Amino acid sequence: MTAETTAAAPQVSTALLTDQYEMTMLQAALADGTAKRQCTFEVFARRLPAGRRYGVVAGVQRFIDAVEDFRFGDAELAMLEPIVDRPTLEFLADYRFDGDIDGYPEGELYFPGSPVLSVRGTFAAAVMLETVALSIYNFDCAVASAAARMSSAAGDRTLIEMGSRRAHEDAAVAAARAAYLAGFDITSNLEAGRRYGIPTGGTAAHSFTLLHDSEEDAFAAQIAAQGTGTTLLVDTYDITKGIETAVRVAGTDLGAVRIDSGDLGVLARSARDQLDALGAKQTRVVLSGDLDEYAIAALRAEPVDSYGVGTSVVTGSGAPTAGMVYKLVEVDGRPVEKRSENKASLGGRKSALRRHRSSGTATEEVVFLAEGQHPEPDERDVVLPIPLVRGGSRVDGLPALVDSRRHLKDALVTLPWEGLKLSQGDPAIPTTLLLPGH
Amino acid sequence: MTAETTAAAPQVSTALLTDQYEMTMLQAALADGTAKRQCTFEVFARRLPAGRRYGVVAGVQRFIDAVEDFRFGDAELAMLEPIVDRPTLEFLADYRFDGDIDGYPEGELYFPGSPVLSVRGTFAAAVMLETVALSIYNFDCAVASAAARMSSAAGDRTLIEMGSRRAHEDAAVAAARAAYLAGFDITSNLEAGRRYGIPTGGTAAHSFTLLHDSEEDAFAAQIAAQGTGTTLLVDTYDITKGIETAVRVAGTDLGAVRIDSGDLGVLARSARDQLDALGAKQTRVVLSGDLDEYAIAALRAEPVDSYGVGTSVVTGSGAPTAGMVYKLVEVDGRPVEKRSENKASLGGRKSALRRHRSSGTATEEVVFLAEGQHPEPDERDVVLPIPLVRGGSRVDGLPALVDSRRHLKDALVTLPWEGLKLSQGDPAIPTTLLLPGH
Repeated sequence: MTAETTAAAPQVSTALLTDQYEMTMLQAALADGTAKRQCTFEVFARRLPAGRRYGVVAGVQRFIDAVEDFRFGDAELAMLEPIVDRPTLEFLADYRFDGDIDGYPEGELYFPGSPVLSVRGTFAAAVMLETVALSIYNFDCAVASAAARMSSAAGDRTLIEMGSRRAHEDAAVAAARAAYLAGFDITSNLEAGRRYGIPTGGTAAHSFTLLHDSEEDAFAAQIAAQGTGTTLLVDTYDITKGIETAVRVAGTDLGAVRIDSGDLGVLARSARDQLDALGAKQTRVVLSGDLDEYAIAALRAEPVDSYGVGTSVVTGSGAPTAGMVYKLVEVDGRPVEKRSENKASLGGRKSALRRHRSSGTATEEVVFLAEGQHPEPDERDVVLPIPLVRGGSRVDGLPALVDSRRHLKDALVTLPWEGLKLSQGDPAIPTTLLLPGH
Repeated sequence: MTAETTAAAPQVSTALLTDQYEMTMLQAALADGTAKRQCTFEVFARRLPAGRRYGVVAGVQRFIDAVEDFRFGDAELAMLEPIVDRPTLEFLADYRFDGDIDGYPEGELYFPGSPVLSVRGTFAAAVMLETVALSIYNFDCAVASAAARMSSAAGDRTLIEMGSRRAHEDAAVAAARAAYLAGFDITSNLEAGRRYGIPTGGTAAHSFTLLHDSEEDAFAAQIAAQGTGTTLLVDTYDITKGIETAVRVAGTDLGAVRIDSGDLGVLARSARDQLDALGAKQTRVVLSGDLDEYAIAALRAEPVDSYGVGTSVVTGSGAPTAGMVYKLVEVDGRPVEKRSENKASLGGRKSALRRHRSSGTATEEVVFLAEGQHPEPDERDVVLPIPLVRGGSRVDGLPALVDSRRHLKDALVTLPWEGLKLSQGDPAIPTTLLLPGH
């Protein structure tokens, strides 16, 4: 065992995962006293990626972890010494977020304008969390939102996330988590298994077949090590021969075959027929290779058991970032808003509820001022934000990852039927702003 | 100072940033003895992102760092205990990569089929590096390749990378590094400054203006803290009034104004005219807001001094992953290749050189077998791969980041003139394969 390396490292500070201007704004605000003003910052998306009908909130627990680790140690302060003045460094040395945070729970749906996160505290306390909050929400929501569409397309078939190699190595771990949240069943990423308890799995690479003197030798070695329940990759040379060899070596109890290239729909059908003819009726067919939600949907009629998805899920299937922003909406109880062209913000601290028909179908997202006139809630309305942090401490009893996964599954069922369509369309439900003057 | 958190943490293992199948393949190969076979794995891209004319190699130093930290401590082994058998765990506990690695230097150009990385060692030593190698190369090359196009479009104007909030929080640090490598001048990301010595900078957010009772108060506070050389954000309310206020408060020595919204070309021109009329002839104009290489090029005729670029650079401007693969090409001196449809690989360990005209213009990338007949090199040919790791240790004297940045700048000059066009096209130079039988 090597002692000097460990994945369970001491807390690493998140404080420098931050844009420099947060620190220089802090210095100026400390100097003129405005740093003490009570502020509310809100995170929201002005729009969904083109044609998407809903978004999925992800990254909530990761953000709260990052807030807890947002501390300035010697290394952080040394970096900042040439950038900010002495009083600012002293403030940072003692910094610990001590405000309140509310937000949509992980696994909740969101729509344009949904106030998915609300960070409250002094300007000094809250402004610095901007960059890390957006990094986490923009990435995790992008992956979860794409993954949820793939999960809808896959129905009851198993989804394996295997995109680690197509994403930054640490982003890959977060992507595995977001994909699992959004309905994927398994990840190939070992660190995601270790850190978040997500089920891990895998098959074999073409290199394993090429390493051996023959495909038969490779299959025999894999079965000797993993048992007949394993998944054999059969497309290194010739798929028909590969399947024949696989069943000859493993017997008809072979767990699965994987096909990673070619016309997957045709190949799935012929693989199924061949397996059945060979008596391997329980052997599953796993497909991979540039699958996205559209390809998965197109394979619905084919005899596929599992999909392995890589690039498309970890890159948000065309929308690699969720476009969320972190905007100051209230200062000392007074609503504030910018009026920049096409980028205006709406002042005032907000809450939201989602209205439903008696059938349970969602009809409308209503955004209203948290301290203004509330809309009349009826028993089918769901108030969306929940408390996440109080006085700087994580609220007890926040949903675990598996709970959030179930929450999303349930939430998707409430969408109007067009909401689950993969084709381009409007948001599945409208957002109504009950904001005085708007 | 808080003692429990530090960015300069002890080495964190990279060993679990890995797909599970690497470990189960290892187990099977240890059991049948093939784990000891001498292998060469190569990293290459089958194609460039649609319409791109070149790619930029980035992530080399990060990959070598990851190889050094690829060690299995107690936490890693505990995770793997239910997945692999005892002999495999024992092998992993002592694992340290002890092979050789060659590759294109950081900042070099690449084209389809360029052998950008070659990892040699036993199958056991080399197979496990697949996932982390691809994670790093696919992300860093995607960002650098996009950033280089932006840098070409910007010419001598300053480029500020400010995309941290649009990328996973750790990916953001790597993105800042890749953008700097590819010609960006400054990053907003503090950790990138700390870790890689990249120049950092920043302006102010709209929240800083909204925090104050008036724009004038906000500008005065920023100038008091940062001096008149600072950059004032003038588009929170009305840009013309914002610029007027900025110069009134700062005087004509104001460093710069930033505009983040609206029709940037028109606004840059009117801001310049207004600043000149106010006597602030040295005050620079900084533009930001959904800029990409095309928007930057479109602003060439306008009086812009600096561009702040976010989303597009950290997401690879439409190509968030470089599509590189890690393929086994040689086993015990014997070339191996898979024949999967559309995903075939070419056997044999390769090297490459780039041919140039007497004018210095590159004409051709020639890929050949490292141990076969070499093409006749002439004095203008450049052999591309360099030794990176020998016997598991980093080679001394590898180029520093600033050297790689200059290398790329020089390499871009060698492209045929069409190679720098932003429009869709073919790779700037053809790749010729001098491989027997292909």
